[in-house]
Amino acid sequence: MPPGDTLQRWICDQCGEIHYQNPKLIVGTVPEYQNKILLCRRAIEPRYGYWTLPAGFMENDETTGQAALRETLEESGARVELGEPFTMISVPRVNQVHLYYRARVHDLGAKPGEETIEVAMFEEARIPWDEIAFRTVGFTLKRWFADRAKGSFSFHAEDLMA
Amino acid sequence: MPPGDTLQRWICDQCGEIHYQNPKLIVGTVPEYQNKILLCRRAIEPRYGYWTLPAGFMENDETTGQAALRETLEESGARVELGEPFTMISVPRVNQVHLYYRARVHDLGAKPGEETIEVAMFEEARIPWDEIAFRTVGFTLKRWFADRAKGSFSFHAEDLMA
Repeated sequence: MPPGDTLQRWICDQCGEIHYQNPKLIVGTVPEYQNKILLCRRAIEPRYGYWTLPAGFMENDETTGQAALRETLEESGARVELGEPFTMISVPRVNQVHLYYRARVHDLGAKPGEETIEVAMFEEARIPWDEIAFRTVGFTLKRWFADRAKGSFSFHAEDLMA
Repeated sequence: MPPGDTLQRWICDQCGEIHYQNPKLIVGTVPEYQNKILLCRRAIEPRYGYWTLPAGFMENDETTGQAALRETLEESGARVELGEPFTMISVPRVNQVHLYYRARVHDLGAKPGEETIEVAMFEEARIPWDEIAFRTVGFTLKRWFADRAKGSFSFHAEDLMA
């Protein structure tokens, strides 16, 4: 525990660098085109073969919006126009905060990234609800279709407890 | 660079633990009571002696809302009722994302925390704009008073570039 701190931290025995372990941001998009939503089928664990929205760890030297665009391009191959932040979901069990932006697909791209088996566009009735990779993705999709039905989108903050 | 990664990472020479360096979340509140806003005068660097909203690093095992309540109590001594998320500001120069919630003061508390010289309540005309510690705080306060003037609060996402 460093002086003045209140929690134990990882400290390098050799150089003294303190590696604080704080929650990480997972940032992604809900890419929409002609009333369909783009989903990616995962080529990696966890949840290999399940469907997800494009998203991933925010990196240093970028904004949340830049992270959302980068992850969308990397995982789906698609270029999108970013909209407003849509959901923000704390998942304290894994020390993560998930943030999804609304987005409009400009260009589906030639092929998805290495982490993705295939990319497909789903209308609401065809969303594979039983094969969604993560609860944060299911929550975000449900909110998106509910808001669209209402005719207005707003920002939704939520906690997913264990 | 670990196998399959695209960026260099910190790795412990002894145990092989990979310490990813991702942006950190700073979470706080805009505590309001009878049309005044609570500010804390900083007892620590950076920006010793300047005024700030209560906020700090989100820790593992908590939600964003829990972090906001904890930091508000630690820095100001005040107990608040949490409202909606209000501002989310990327600051890529320092690899941070700042998140402020609206909040209503329930109990000002006996005394502020060690990081705070004093706590005071300010009406809009008395906000010490020239002595605000951080740009994210000034941005959040300006949005708060602008939204109050409009009679409705919404969520604001912003990037603060260097």
